[in-house]
Amino acid sequence: MRYELYYWPSIQGRGEYVRLALEDAGADYADVARGDRGMGAMVKMMEARSGTPPFAPPFLKAGKLVIGQTANILSYLGSRHGLAPKAEAGRLWLHQLQLTVTDFVVEVHDTHHPLGPSMYYEDQIGPAKKRTAEFWDERVPKYLGYFERLLQDHGGRWLTGRKATYVDLSLFQIVEGLRYAFPKRMKAFERKIPGLLDLHDRVAVRPNIKTYLASDRRIAFNEDGIFRHYKALDV
Amino acid sequence: MRYELYYWPSIQGRGEYVRLALEDAGADYADVARGDRGMGAMVKMMEARSGTPPFAPPFLKAGKLVIGQTANILSYLGSRHGLAPKAEAGRLWLHQLQLTVTDFVVEVHDTHHPLGPSMYYEDQIGPAKKRTAEFWDERVPKYLGYFERLLQDHGGRWLTGRKATYVDLSLFQIVEGLRYAFPKRMKAFERKIPGLLDLHDRVAVRPNIKTYLASDRRIAFNEDGIFRHYKALDV
Repeated sequence: MRYELYYWPSIQGRGEYVRLALEDAGADYADVARGDRGMGAMVKMMEARSGTPPFAPPFLKAGKLVIGQTANILSYLGSRHGLAPKAEAGRLWLHQLQLTVTDFVVEVHDTHHPLGPSMYYEDQIGPAKKRTAEFWDERVPKYLGYFERLLQDHGGRWLTGRKATYVDLSLFQIVEGLRYAFPKRMKAFERKIPGLLDLHDRVAVRPNIKTYLASDRRIAFNEDGIFRHYKALDV
Repeated sequence: MRYELYYWPSIQGRGEYVRLALEDAGADYADVARGDRGMGAMVKMMEARSGTPPFAPPFLKAGKLVIGQTANILSYLGSRHGLAPKAEAGRLWLHQLQLTVTDFVVEVHDTHHPLGPSMYYEDQIGPAKKRTAEFWDERVPKYLGYFERLLQDHGGRWLTGRKATYVDLSLFQIVEGLRYAFPKRMKAFERKIPGLLDLHDRVAVRPNIKTYLASDRRIAFNEDGIFRHYKALDV
């Protein structure tokens, strides 16, 4: 079966967590909105008056299923492609962790858009500076400290133990994104998360991920995505 | 089996979506942190160095399982207590919808804390006013318009069709919360969501919900929760 991924064609954004899982799994998929008439197809599916129209991208078409919400898609893909345990207890635990990554991603976005997604960054730079300061003082240490501690407590190799999962791929993306958006702040912070840095490096050399990152399927970070580099916020 | 729910004892917050499901199902549960030494027990579980310590409340202990993240808990409870379909396609769809409710709840919280959760509301009233204006201009119509449309397209009774699910209980809570936090704004908006208002009323008279709402197990809305009534934001 060929999956169809629907996501904004010019950013990594939330779709990237799904792309990383599909790529690592070597799954056959089309990144629909990056092709001809793909955006139209995406919008049409969201506006459907029957079936299961998603609220927002990313969503995945898998045969007859249309699955929305990043963590939901990963949960579906995970146990089918060796990136999650098959037993319920393990799946629930992994999904819980991915939803915590999801919460963190929302807070990353809020650093540059604290007054809401509909206004331009340029119209909210002052509040963005305050939100970003709080993010690095309080939220990054809390979230990444939690993952660092779990990693240590589970042997230090992959977050939940001996096997890599989709959450490890997502944590790779978090480290990449923070380095892109906040190079100065992240550099100062990295000594607190040695385990996550090692995990990041282990993900980066997985053969399918390495190939993906070097391909033009990997969209470059840019200032339309979740992780944005604004000099005013990286002090 | 007696479930143990762990959540902050003095607010509805995110725990309320779980409480509503447990109550509607007539499930046997303890609201642990509201009892003696409950807060200590909750913190201890979050700080555990083995097992599956959650990042934050709410979490549910179900036998040996410790399940964190509201939507994950509801997914677990749903198919066991007749509040979700048993087949995978239906479960994925329902979970997708609940995760969209989750996204909306984050945005509700951001109305009074746009500069981040660590600062007091009183120190961010100006930005809160701007964020709230955007929330009502753009976000409420987008989210509730989506649910209203789905409801109409699925027969108008319950969100996904003929049977009530945990998502319907959550939408009841969304309507309740918006009415509490923003009575003026919500009153002006309600004519746009007649279906959701009917759904709200249908949930409110479900026997177990009716009993719950009249009991002291239902914590009153207050200004420590997600839905907060601040006059400056309700214009």
